[in-house]
Formats: sequence, structure tokens, C-alpha cells
Amino acid sequence: MTSPVAPAPLFDSVCLIGLGLIGSSLSHAIRRAGLAREIVGYAKTPATRAKALELGLVTRAPATAAEAVAGCDLVILNTPVGACGAIAAEIGPHLAKWAIVTDVGGVKAAIVRDVAPHLPPHAHFVPGHPIAGTEFSGPESGFAELYDGKWTILTPPEDTDPHAIGKVQALWEGCGAKVEIMTPDHHDMVLAITSHVPHLIAYTIVGTADELGSVTEKEVIKFSAGGFRDFTRIAASDPVMWRDVFLNNREAVLEMLGRFNEDLSQLQRLVRYGDGPGMEAFFARTREIRRSVVQAGQDSATGTALYRARSAKPPE
Amino acid sequence: MTSPVAPAPLFDSVCLIGLGLIGSSLSHAIRRAGLAREIVGYAKTPATRAKALELGLVTRAPATAAEAVAGCDLVILNTPVGACGAIAAEIGPHLAKWAIVTDVGGVKAAIVRDVAPHLPPHAHFVPGHPIAGTEFSGPESGFAELYDGKWTILTPPEDTDPHAIGKVQALWEGCGAKVEIMTPDHHDMVLAITSHVPHLIAYTIVGTADELGSVTEKEVIKFSAGGFRDFTRIAASDPVMWRDVFLNNREAVLEMLGRFNEDLSQLQRLVRYGDGPGMEAFFARTREIRRSVVQAGQDSATGTALYRARSAKPPE
Repeated sequence: MTSPVAPAPLFDSVCLIGLGLIGSSLSHAIRRAGLAREIVGYAKTPATRAKALELGLVTRAPATAAEAVAGCDLVILNTPVGACGAIAAEIGPHLAKWAIVTDVGGVKAAIVRDVAPHLPPHAHFVPGHPIAGTEFSGPESGFAELYDGKWTILTPPEDTDPHAIGKVQALWEGCGAKVEIMTPDHHDMVLAITSHVPHLIAYTIVGTADELGSVTEKEVIKFSAGGFRDFTRIAASDPVMWRDVFLNNREAVLEMLGRFNEDLSQLQRLVRYGDGPGMEAFFARTREIRRSVVQAGQDSATGTALYRARSAKPPE
Repeated sequence: MTSPVAPAPLFDSVCLIGLGLIGSSLSHAIRRAGLAREIVGYAKTPATRAKALELGLVTRAPATAAEAVAGCDLVILNTPVGACGAIAAEIGPHLAKWAIVTDVGGVKAAIVRDVAPHLPPHAHFVPGHPIAGTEFSGPESGFAELYDGKWTILTPPEDTDPHAIGKVQALWEGCGAKVEIMTPDHHDMVLAITSHVPHLIAYTIVGTADELGSVTEKEVIKFSAGGFRDFTRIAASDPVMWRDVFLNNREAVLEMLGRFNEDLSQLQRLVRYGDGPGMEAFFARTREIRRSVVQAGQDSATGTALYRARSAKPPE
């Protein structure tokens, strides 16, 4: 950054509030692209702050969020959704005049409701949500490539300064992501079906399997390669983060769950009455959707057991 | 095999009826380990038979299953469950005196019901089911490593010749699999919860998403990285194979689905009433189960986006 020809970084001082998978990956990605002169961080526990310093995720880790945000031109809230309101109340009076505040929460209408009232009029609030993650948590779990090729949704209120939106968009693009802008309510509806209800279902079936008397837990685990293990991966996501998602996107989740239940009853009926052609038609349709997901670059054949095995040792 | 010190292969002539993912992978694995002197194959369509010859999966591919099994000491049925009865009726009179017949069907009580009556008394029937697969189908999709480290369940009737069971077990172990023996009914119960109901649920949610008016299909696909894409992978499995599974394991599937529905209602209630502690406790429990699956070697952290990204390009 001291080279005379290097362009000025996008931000001078970025503050990461929360240093788990999402926050630590942001640090890796921001440093990879040279998007900030300095990264400051805050986490609730002293152990996480010490670990973040040790890993080089941040250069400073003050003991309070209020101290951490002081003088920063970008503040990113990387905490579970339920914690954002209280943090906004704490940092609001300490935000720099030119500060942009964004977040990564999995629900957006509730974040706007909880955070916006605490921010001073001179700050710019651009809510965001990167659609990326793994089953792992904590500051050690982050990596620079997490956002590469993934989507980040921004849901700025209508009167937001376009310059602030542009800078947050440039941040995510610099971290490898693609950006889409929509309203908070629409975001919450889209994510209810693509993420929240799938997680609720995965949590349920893994719990159901755990409670069976006729099939032992050992058997469930041993023979999980037939489909179940993919659900266990989803159902291993951070419990507090997901609790907050369901507490804060209740209406959309219940709406989508209602539709899922209707459709499951329909398929259950096909099974009960042995309707072979009906089932086959249903299953053939969903196969096409998979093809679209792969074509859209949101997953790849390289993620499958087939490709992994082939990569490890190509067939003759 | 002509070397004077080479041991005799486990089987002289193996006949693969059905040359899709499972059958073609068996050919690769059998040849990898030198388990047979010759592999003969049959598939319904001439195109698949030609492709199997071209790929070297089989050395002969007669036009009928009856011709294919003639003189073979092992016959493996790799067709959808619903096709096994008719094939057994066709091949029964043509089986060699010393023939062992096995299969790979995802349900076992129905296979015993449909296949056993058609086999001559001199043949040995050892039903089996490898718990392995990918979302791909067809003779090109097979690879030798598919069964490595995976479980194959055998469900031989009580009076089966132990020598025949031993040879089928040795076949699967030679193909890299671990073998467990249980009754057909218990198999069907275990697989209902670890595989059949998870597939039914995945097919349902992918269908639900496809029919939404408020969220476009394009959005569902674009933002699928939040959980949905793992369901699309499961819901891309072969439609005919899965139709036959649900037609033939109805009771166990409906029983497990009933339990799942009860548990989903309970979780739905926690969401509706905003019971944060209840949700968090539920989600923390399922995370432990994931840990057991990984520890049991039935999945690995290398299957996650995290590890894949790290392998591709290690963090600094």
C-alpha cells in the first residue's frame, strides 16, 4: 500500500463486529484484495479477540464494540441477527461522521427494524447478506475464497445515499461476490424457501432419526451415505445463528413451511396409493431444477462423490 | 490371470444385469481387484449394451438377459427394484447349476418376495444393497471407487448356503465395501429413515420452490447456496429407481414420514411461538449427530465447501 503507484484502498479502516466464520472470512477476503488500510475487530469473548489477533485477522481488537468502531469508515456487523439491535445501540453514538454500517444477517426486515433507529442521521446503513457459509464456526474457520462466485444481497432503504450503496457493493465484489439489490421483505421471502425452511427440515429429520427405537443411532450413522448425511451437514450449522433467523423471519418461514407441508401431503398420498406414474413425473421435474442450479454456477459436479473420487484417482 | 502364480479369481464369469451407475461401477471395481475372469452384461436398450462394450465394461453383451446369464457363476441384478421380478422369471430357467444370484436394490423385503419364487432350487439367492451412489446415471457414470469404504447390506434368507453368502461378501469387500448382514425388514426400516424419507423430503421442497409465485425460479436457483442446493442434489437422483423404492417400501416410508411430520409440527410450533431456547436446544443436539457421521467415516470435512476451497487454494 506504500508503493507510489498503488491505488488508495476502498476503505481506510474497516471494523468487523463479530469474528466467526463470516467475519474472519471477510478479513481474509478484504486483505486478499487490499480493500482496506486497516482491519479492526471486536468479538464478545476475550478468547476470540486474542485468537483473531494471533491469526492476523485484525490489527487491533479493543475490549468494547464502541471503542472498535471509533474512526472507522466501514462497520460490518457479523453477529447473529438477534444481537444486532443491542450492538447498534452501543456503537451508534461512537460512529464516525462518514461511517457506513452494513451487516451480514440472514434476515433483513428485522435487521432494519432493530438497527436503523439506533444509528445517527449522519451514518449510512446498507443492510446486506452474503449467501455463503459452511458447517463450521469460529475465527479459525474463515477463508478468503468463501464468497468467490457467491451472491450477496443488499437491501438498502429507498432514501439511502447511492454512493454508500456503491461502496458496499464494491466491497463485496472485491471479496469475489456478485451483488443483487432487493427489498428486505422480498429477501426474507426468497431466503425462507432457499435456506430457512431447508434448514428447518434438515434439523427435523436428523432429530427424528436420533429418536427412533427400532433403528439404532449407530445404524443411522453407519448407513447415512444414502442421503441422510447431506441433511446432517445442513443440520450442523450454528444453533444460535439459526435460532435468531427463525425468531426474526417467522411469518415468511411459516408461510413457506405451510406450502411445503401441503406438497409433502400430496407426495405422501402418491406413496400411500402406490401411484407410480405420479411419483415418476414429480421426480423427473425436480431433476431439471438441479440441472439449472449447476448451470447457474451455484454448485458443480465437482462437489459430488463421483467427481471427488475421480479427482482422487481417475478411472482407467 | 494366465500367470502361473496368480490366484484364481473369486468368480469365473460374472453377469451384470443392468449397466447404469451401479452396474458400471461394479464392472470397474471387479476389474480393479481381478475378482472375475470374465464380465458379461445385459441392458434393456441396444444403445446401452453398445456403450458398455465400447467402454470395456463387459466383454460380451447378449441381446437377452436369458442368454447373458447362461454359464455364469454370479448374476448381479442392477436394475430398478420394480424390474427385478420379471427379470428373475426370465433368467430363472437359464441359470447355471452353481449360480449365485444377488441384487443391489434399495428395498429388500419386496425383492425377496418378487425374485425368490422364480429362481430354481439349485441357485443361491443372496439379496444385497450397496449404500453408495451419486446423482448421475448411465454406463458412463460408473467408477471403480464408488464402493470404497461404503457399506453393503446383505439380507440372505435364514436357510441360505453360508458358502454363497461368503462369496457375495468377498465380492463386495473386494470392491472396497464393508459388509453387514441383517433381515430384509430391518434393512427396509433403516433405509426408510436414512435414505428414503430424506429423498422424499428433498423432492418435495425442490418441487415447492419450483411452484412459488412470489419468488421466481431464477431467484431460487441464484440464491440456492444457502441450503437449497444440497436438496437439489438429492432430488436429482434417478426418477424410476426412486419411484420403485417408494412403491416397494411403502409401509416403512409412511411410518417414518409420520414421525417426521410430528417432529416438524413440534419445531413449527417453536417457530410460531418464538421459543428461542427450545430451538437452540434442538439445533445443538443435531450438530452432535453430524460429528458422529464424520467420525464414523461416512462423510468428511473434505466434502464441504470450506475444505474444497482450501484445497484449491490454501489460505495465506
